[in-house]
Amino acid sequence: MRADARCLVCHMNQALRVFDKYMRSEEEKWERLKNVMVVLQKAKWGMKPIEIAEVLYPALEEMVNARDVYEQEKRRSNEMAEKMLRKFGEIIKSSMDPLYDAAKLAIAGNLIDLGTPNWNEDSVYKKISEILQKPFGINDYEVFKEELSRSSSILYIVDNAGEIVFDRFFIEVMKEYNEDIDVVVAAKSKPIINDATVLEAAEIMEGVAEVIDSGMTIPGTIVERGSDRFRKLFFNSDIVVSKGQGNFEGIVGESGGNVYFLLTVKCDVVSDFLKVPVGSMVFMKKKE
Amino acid sequence: MRADARCLVCHMNQALRVFDKYMRSEEEKWERLKNVMVVLQKAKWGMKPIEIAEVLYPALEEMVNARDVYEQEKRRSNEMAEKMLRKFGEIIKSSMDPLYDAAKLAIAGNLIDLGTPNWNEDSVYKKISEILQKPFGINDYEVFKEELSRSSSILYIVDNAGEIVFDRFFIEVMKEYNEDIDVVVAAKSKPIINDATVLEAAEIMEGVAEVIDSGMTIPGTIVERGSDRFRKLFFNSDIVVSKGQGNFEGIVGESGGNVYFLLTVKCDVVSDFLKVPVGSMVFMKKKE
Repeated sequence: MRADARCLVCHMNQALRVFDKYMRSEEEKWERLKNVMVVLQKAKWGMKPIEIAEVLYPALEEMVNARDVYEQEKRRSNEMAEKMLRKFGEIIKSSMDPLYDAAKLAIAGNLIDLGTPNWNEDSVYKKISEILQKPFGINDYEVFKEELSRSSSILYIVDNAGEIVFDRFFIEVMKEYNEDIDVVVAAKSKPIINDATVLEAAEIMEGVAEVIDSGMTIPGTIVERGSDRFRKLFFNSDIVVSKGQGNFEGIVGESGGNVYFLLTVKCDVVSDFLKVPVGSMVFMKKKE
Repeated sequence: MRADARCLVCHMNQALRVFDKYMRSEEEKWERLKNVMVVLQKAKWGMKPIEIAEVLYPALEEMVNARDVYEQEKRRSNEMAEKMLRKFGEIIKSSMDPLYDAAKLAIAGNLIDLGTPNWNEDSVYKKISEILQKPFGINDYEVFKEELSRSSSILYIVDNAGEIVFDRFFIEVMKEYNEDIDVVVAAKSKPIINDATVLEAAEIMEGVAEVIDSGMTIPGTIVERGSDRFRKLFFNSDIVVSKGQGNFEGIVGESGGNVYFLLTVKCDVVSDFLKVPVGSMVFMKKKE
């Protein structure tokens, strides 16, 4: 999926959020944002949005002198998600269709920013409860369910911290639905925005799934850049689950791989592309 | 009022709106927005937001090859405002306090973009009716009313097209309240964004007030840059009425002039400065 001019503005807003976290001086933010505009000159037409991030974030890390700018938020997100799972897990497991509800929880986790500092458990609980009532904007769940029943291998490409706790739960429910499946989880090589890294993912997924390094240092997935193991699994697994916008942006134009995209639509650019409103939850099988 | 980093991002969004109006090619918008980022390097820390516009808009006009980028929208806004005035004018004139309601209508006109192409009369009527029910976020109206009763000269600095029709109505009501006042209206020298120019203002104000050229080519007012006549009136009129954010940004730090600001708060930067939420209607006397 190609980035457009709105993505340039979005990345400036992302830079501002990082500056707000690390800088007190308004003048410093002003000057640094002008530096960002110089850095963004390197973004070429035809790039994917995640490739703009690849241009921007290394420069941002240098500007704020931090290697993992959302470290705290990621930890906080995982803690909040574990708390939520204690509330929602049993309800979902005893629901009419636990697989459906677990998928929805995993997508809901992609919609809300679990690491927002001043959120409390009650407001997050309320928010997730509301989201779970909403229908999918694009819904290929039934096809997925049928395929899952006769599959033996899944590659599960995770996205952000926080939601990864719900991903683990969804994987557990998939395994209960079909005991014969083997799930491998792929996560980023190193910190980028609030994406779960391979180290963070390994901790969360312990005892549930093997975790591999996707080879990605961008906030999404471009298959040809993947590690050997990743590419092999991408093209040969019975099912590939791709979580979130970043992975979607990179994979949607890929030929090959039996991919299901599970995401929430977070911006106008993806909304225009998928023709569903911002905020929509999407469970979509990739066209060949 | 000093611009901060958010104002740089806002001006990029403003550029995008102009490009969306004049360009079909997404690639052209992308490349031009990168040009805008180069142009914005000239914006210096300490500038007012309206001075960023002064850097940006001449470059934009060149990029889209137009001298008056919102010409159509301004005309459409004036037409819509005239229609609304036919609906609201008599009601306001027979209300408990026509001066108060006319001031509110003039501020309401600053809040809504009357030139939005696909708005119809009904939706605009509904919107204005709602706004007229809202209280002011900052309210120095009683002080104004008292001062008005013993004043003889008013300088009225207008802002956008559309709302200027409501400004004319407010001036008429002020003159009915105090028949001894002489009102001079100041408008921009030439087209900038959707601000009313001196030529456009003269047409609207015919028979109601003299219109002068403020000397401004920016979307707001910086008094020291004003024409001789403007500066003389600014410092010597009994009351100065300043409409909108752009005039507010430039005048609020000025010493001298008995200024009342009538505006709606349209962005986070002004909201932070005035400590009232975005969307608030403000009727505020300038501190000395």
